[in-house]
Amino acid sequence: MTTDRNPRIDVAEVERMILSLGAIGAHLGTGVWRTAYSPEWVTANALVADWCHKAGLTVRSDAAGNLWARAEGTEGGKAIVSGSHIDSQCPGGRYDGALGIIAALAAITALKRDFGPPRRPLELVSLCEEEGSRFPTAGFWGSRAIVGKIAQGDIETVTEANGGSIAAAMAHIGLDPARIGEARRDDIAAFLELHIEQGPVLEHANRPVAVVDAITAIRHTRVTLTGEQNHAGAFPMDLRRDPMAGFAEATSALIDHAHRLGRPAVTTIGSCLPYPNAPAVIPRSVTFTIDARHPDPAAAAKMHEVHAALLHEIAARRGLELKMEVQFDHPACLSDPGLVAALESSATRQGIPAIRMASGAGHDSQQLAAVCPVAMVFVRSAGGRSHTPEEFSTLDDIVAGIRVLAGALHSLAY
Amino acid sequence: MTTDRNPRIDVAEVERMILSLGAIGAHLGTGVWRTAYSPEWVTANALVADWCHKAGLTVRSDAAGNLWARAEGTEGGKAIVSGSHIDSQCPGGRYDGALGIIAALAAITALKRDFGPPRRPLELVSLCEEEGSRFPTAGFWGSRAIVGKIAQGDIETVTEANGGSIAAAMAHIGLDPARIGEARRDDIAAFLELHIEQGPVLEHANRPVAVVDAITAIRHTRVTLTGEQNHAGAFPMDLRRDPMAGFAEATSALIDHAHRLGRPAVTTIGSCLPYPNAPAVIPRSVTFTIDARHPDPAAAAKMHEVHAALLHEIAARRGLELKMEVQFDHPACLSDPGLVAALESSATRQGIPAIRMASGAGHDSQQLAAVCPVAMVFVRSAGGRSHTPEEFSTLDDIVAGIRVLAGALHSLAY
Repeated sequence: MTTDRNPRIDVAEVERMILSLGAIGAHLGTGVWRTAYSPEWVTANALVADWCHKAGLTVRSDAAGNLWARAEGTEGGKAIVSGSHIDSQCPGGRYDGALGIIAALAAITALKRDFGPPRRPLELVSLCEEEGSRFPTAGFWGSRAIVGKIAQGDIETVTEANGGSIAAAMAHIGLDPARIGEARRDDIAAFLELHIEQGPVLEHANRPVAVVDAITAIRHTRVTLTGEQNHAGAFPMDLRRDPMAGFAEATSALIDHAHRLGRPAVTTIGSCLPYPNAPAVIPRSVTFTIDARHPDPAAAAKMHEVHAALLHEIAARRGLELKMEVQFDHPACLSDPGLVAALESSATRQGIPAIRMASGAGHDSQQLAAVCPVAMVFVRSAGGRSHTPEEFSTLDDIVAGIRVLAGALHSLAY
Repeated sequence: MTTDRNPRIDVAEVERMILSLGAIGAHLGTGVWRTAYSPEWVTANALVADWCHKAGLTVRSDAAGNLWARAEGTEGGKAIVSGSHIDSQCPGGRYDGALGIIAALAAITALKRDFGPPRRPLELVSLCEEEGSRFPTAGFWGSRAIVGKIAQGDIETVTEANGGSIAAAMAHIGLDPARIGEARRDDIAAFLELHIEQGPVLEHANRPVAVVDAITAIRHTRVTLTGEQNHAGAFPMDLRRDPMAGFAEATSALIDHAHRLGRPAVTTIGSCLPYPNAPAVIPRSVTFTIDARHPDPAAAAKMHEVHAALLHEIAARRGLELKMEVQFDHPACLSDPGLVAALESSATRQGIPAIRMASGAGHDSQQLAAVCPVAMVFVRSAGGRSHTPEEFSTLDDIVAGIRVLAGALHSLAY
């Protein structure tokens, strides 16, 4: 299957790496619990560092705790980088994040073995705290450090659930939090990230691999509808101002709107809290969060307009007070067309049936896009599951993804 | 306004009693916080006992802590009883419960003064823990003791939030919990309870008083819809089994059904809990409670049928698992037609414009109905508010209600 430009991937070695890394912080059999800067995280990075060292790469840790492994380029210049994050959800699976690091190492090892040293520097990166699973407000911590998006104050204000600061956690493993600014890089030519899909699109399309042309825009809007709290028995229906009725109508309308727009639009109401949340009391208020996503910036903007109009109309008609607060608004991240082309030609020339799709989840790539062109490879997820010990991708699909990645790295670095 | 059969009510004394009783356990200005067997509750009952003693009544406390005050009947026989509960919500207002005790005392005092001793025994009762605000599973505790609906085991298993048993609370104020069975009575000929409406029906009808012809049936059904938990970004709309979408549709349909039935049907979804209740996760399940009420037993049964059919259809169509569990099911309590007639003629001959209505809330009367005929008088509630320090009824409306009660007590006991 390989041609001159496509290295042979060591399938057994990939499987061995998945199992070895999955054993560190193993949880509920097939899961892992490996939060940033924890003992399990330190051990996992040490194992990756050891593998990279044995592969002849130059290994270093940066000021944020990201692990880098580099093959120097015979012609120098900016680096071609691949990797992903090594932290997990609590618990997560073996593949989310870790697979991108294993893929980069398998690809770089194969390229070096089959084609010798690259023309341009070729690097692997193991990124830190993508999930925000230990420090909820520190999502993409490692990739944000690389692009300079960590303010000095963050070091003190970012805390975990028990109140401990991220600065203390960094210091505990020998990092100097005050120096996190030194993790910044401006010498990256391209970043390619392989990741599990985390959704069912590839499974339903019956394809092993996708090339990601965009990461979706995500907006979280916190909404409160307020009516009048009253006795559930003594208040006739016709005299109520019931925010639960307004919430139900709004939720149906918001969800139906995403259905009408069709893929890739999604809208989720995942959390809601009535007050006082008592069975025999007409609630005073219902607070809920709208998670709305679309990879096309114009379509996302239009979606938000429809949502606001719909909520205003329902609240006004029902005599409810409406409060809307945008909690965050991540813009869409478009992949670099040149990198998408490189990945797609790699798939084509190796006979790997890849589709093109947008990512509905956020990834480190969207942070690194601030300093370099990016693109991603998705590998089919069984049942579309992720953020659970049940997540699974077959070795065949994984190796197909690594081949697509390796072929593209060859075209960029050799 | 009074005729031969209608005593003159001492309006100033009624106002004084409302303020004096409202001062015991006073909370947030106009509210009260007076839970069963608490020091405030003991003080309030002592004050009522003192008033009754001064009114020439024979006062006693029963084994449950209910306070009874009796005017012997010249011809003996079973007693005509009026009263309500003296415990409050946390906090409640001055009127919910307490007003029924004040009304009974004002009526009996006036009857004795204007007409001498009654032919039949005439009693006032101050009932214990109607609200269940201190002991959540002990609602109607005092009236249940009177009708023999407290099992011996309840004494040990009924606890307050901090774990203390109701037996300990009773013993603390000198009651012997083992003797609660002695509170039972089978010598009551009729029970008339005056209570604030707790809803806005009288206010909207512009009437001071209602005669209650039924207390509604109440059913609480706990429902869980279970779908598939997935990533809010990575899962396309068309592949979701989202229990929040099912919950929203069901809630709209349940509430709309009560609107279509019209008064007196009501349906409330006051509590709901998605799991895991995270903004970026399609929930695995949504659990909620349906509070459905109708005073007509046949209409209530039909309503429950429609609810079940509707939930089964929505769950099946959306591929959701449905679990329904009836938490409790209080049947409707129909007022005694003779007592309703006595109250309505009393209103008519005193020129008090009373409407007839069902109670959407539960009351001690529905417990006492197990041993005697019952009926109720409702007094208009400002804004329909109750279970809040804001609850309020005007002195004019209160006195109108007491006149209706007193006239009926005259026709029954004299």
